[in-house]
Amino acid sequence: MFSITVRDHFMVAHSFTGEVFGPAQRLHGATFVVDATFRRTELDGDNIVIDIGLAGAKLKSICGALSYRNLDDEPDFKGVNTSTEYLAKVIADRLAQAITGGDMGASAAEITGISITLRESHIAWATYERTL
Amino acid sequence: MFSITVRDHFMVAHSFTGEVFGPAQRLHGATFVVDATFRRTELDGDNIVIDIGLAGAKLKSICGALSYRNLDDEPDFKGVNTSTEYLAKVIADRLAQAITGGDMGASAAEITGISITLRESHIAWATYERTL
Amino acid sequence: MFSITVRDHFMVAHSFTGEVFGPAQRLHGATFVVDATFRRTELDGDNIVIDIGLAGAKLKSICGALSYRNLDDEPDFKGVNTSTEYLAKVIADRLAQAITGGDMGASAAEITGISITLRESHIAWATYERTL
Amino acid sequence: MFSITVRDHFMVAHSFTGEVFGPAQRLHGATFVVDATFRRTELDGDNIVIDIGLAGAKLKSICGALSYRNLDDEPDFKGVNTSTEYLAKVIADRLAQAITGGDMGASAAEITGISITLRESHIAWATYERTL
Amino acid sequence: MFSITVRDHFMVAHSFTGEVFGPAQRLHGATFVVDATFRRTELDGDNIVIDIGLAGAKLKSICGALSYRNLDDEPDFKGVNTSTEYLAKVIADRLAQAITGGDMGASAAEITGISITLRESHIAWATYERTL
Amino acid sequence: MFSITVRDHFMVAHSFTGEVFGPAQRLHGATFVVDATFRRTELDGDNIVIDIGLAGAKLKSICGALSYRNLDDEPDFKGVNTSTEYLAKVIADRLAQAITGGDMGASAAEITGISITLRESHIAWATYERTL
Repeated sequence: MFSITVRDHFMVAHSFTGEVFGPAQRLHGATFVVDATFRRTELDGDNIVIDIGLAGAKLKSICGALSYRNLDDEPDFKGVNTSTEYLAKVIADRLAQAITGGDMGASAAEITGISITLRESHIAWATYERTL
Repeated sequence: MFSITVRDHFMVAHSFTGEVFGPAQRLHGATFVVDATFRRTELDGDNIVIDIGLAGAKLKSICGALSYRNLDDEPDFKGVNTSTEYLAKVIADRLAQAITGGDMGASAAEITGISITLRESHIAWATYERTL
Repeated sequence: MFSITVRDHFMVAHSFTGEVFGPAQRLHGATFVVDATFRRTELDGDNIVIDIGLAGAKLKSICGALSYRNLDDEPDFKGVNTSTEYLAKVIADRLAQAITGGDMGASAAEITGISITLRESHIAWATYERTL
Repeated sequence: MFSITVRDHFMVAHSFTGEVFGPAQRLHGATFVVDATFRRTELDGDNIVIDIGLAGAKLKSICGALSYRNLDDEPDFKGVNTSTEYLAKVIADRLAQAITGGDMGASAAEITGISITLRESHIAWATYERTL
Repeated sequence: MFSITVRDHFMVAHSFTGEVFGPAQRLHGATFVVDATFRRTELDGDNIVIDIGLAGAKLKSICGALSYRNLDDEPDFKGVNTSTEYLAKVIADRLAQAITGGDMGASAAEITGISITLRESHIAWATYERTL
Repeated sequence: MFSITVRDHFMVAHSFTGEVFGPAQRLHGATFVVDATFRRTELDGDNIVIDIGLAGAKLKSICGALSYRNLDDEPDFKGVNTSTEYLAKVIADRLAQAITGGDMGASAAEITGISITLRESHIAWATYERTL
């Protein structure tokens, strides 16, 4: 099994609903450093997993659509707790859609799995893994 | 599959028995930076894997019970080689016990796996993974 | 010259005023990982720069007073661009006040300088240095 | 499941063939920081996964045989795109050969899997995993 | 004293002349992760050291002009040992020229110093510092 | 001003005397990741600060002489609190002695300063700087 990973980041405000969140129920914010991993069983004819240029550009575009925003005000996230683990799934699903939609090159069709890690600090991070 | 990870550390003295350990047979020490990962299939109603506050506090408590000690003198480890990989299992099992014992909140009951990585230096680390 | 550094972090929402900030004029947020460095010429009688327990606790208290907040709403920062470099100075000055106020132990009186680095992502950080 | 990981690095020149590589079709170079992970189900009688001294020495030897070279000129890689993901497999296979050849100690016979991560920068890396 | 730092990277082939370089006399390569630090005494009217957008874009442009090349073939470096420390100076001087040439905004005129760190691996890096 | 830095590590047991150390008065241990920085005004004729091979080998030798030991039992440290900041000075002074003794090559004579950072965990480190 092969994989490649590219890193980017985004910076958002948000708040959480639920006692479990304690002081994080208040409006606050986070930098999320995002590691996007793409997996496949065998390399393609160029000896790569995916076009890393396209993968990085797509990840940057997805991060850009989230960044410098208050997620509480975004229609996509109305009434949703945009926890680190939830946002990892959002990014994974958007990358999966880009792959199945053909935005990441023909050879991306062989990608069998994606995992997204979002680092919210030097001491906490979350990961979401899915198949394609 | 979702996971979250929290990081803490502890600092211990110990020695090893067995020729394979070379100079590490002498009494020496280590800082172990601990990454504790909790896994579950779906998020709970708050959109989280586990109460990260409780998870971090429990990990700190487990690290505190090990730290600033000579493991060679601890009853739990008499005659045991407290290797990095072995200590990873000790911490995983103690966290698993906390979860099954109900110390980490009701939603922790859905945790299906734990993995613990102990970093002993910038060039060496060990991981232990288990199910729940 | 000796120094010791301790690390902590805080998570805030804020917005900036001024065209130079581009999309960061919108309400967004950041995790700031804080490295607080204390300097002195010679070590004290215990062979240390400062009581690292007190230094870490004070840094945690200062970070806690900032964290999980929207800085735009904080009286201390009304009408102020709470840039990374500005916040570095805020933390340095609060630590300096703690030292001169005697909150960090007698031997802290020999501290001659503080520098604070705030990391806002894996690719950007700011530092403020001052004397005491 | 237990694993241990050791880190080393190598520095090479190479070029790629294929439009997908864009400017990387030109002769350029990379530092590859290598994380080699060895897995087994249970620890051996010494409470370890593998002799970490032997594992680190073997990894250093494999990195040394690649380092300070232009891979385009190496007989092993003639006409091959030595991508990060491909080089991860090269190292995994050489370590696997060392294990099955008995070069890494008797207890290494219980190793069931290897994974190799090659970091080419702070924002991109590749992994290859295989069984033994 | 305030500073901000931005990070980027470039990937090159090169070789060195001189016995001191040992095997690095052969054509090989490196990834250089670049940290560019800008210093000034007081913040500007926006509470910043420099327009971080312009600083990051200029650093990316300078890295781009070096990357995916064999430095041995570049006219700028004919007969020069492009060591890590030397390349740090090249980048610092190019950034200084951009500042004095007015490419990085009016407020950049108050920058008093630049330092460039080039990381060539997880265990080696070089820094060059200069005034403006 | 130019500098280069090399990284190594050592693993020791020790205890501290003095109430300020709290639980660290007990016998415990640490991994110290060591960053050794060498400074000079201008590069030598080979465009380097120092022979990085010799510098790394000397640092490894100094770390090796400390590692896998209980510092409380070492004659050099009898009755001494081997704090992180103190150990940084020990290593700096040993490297300085190697330079002035001619062990690190002729061009090392131009080194004007050394600084040593010892990282004891992901959240604490100490630095000692000296001239030559």
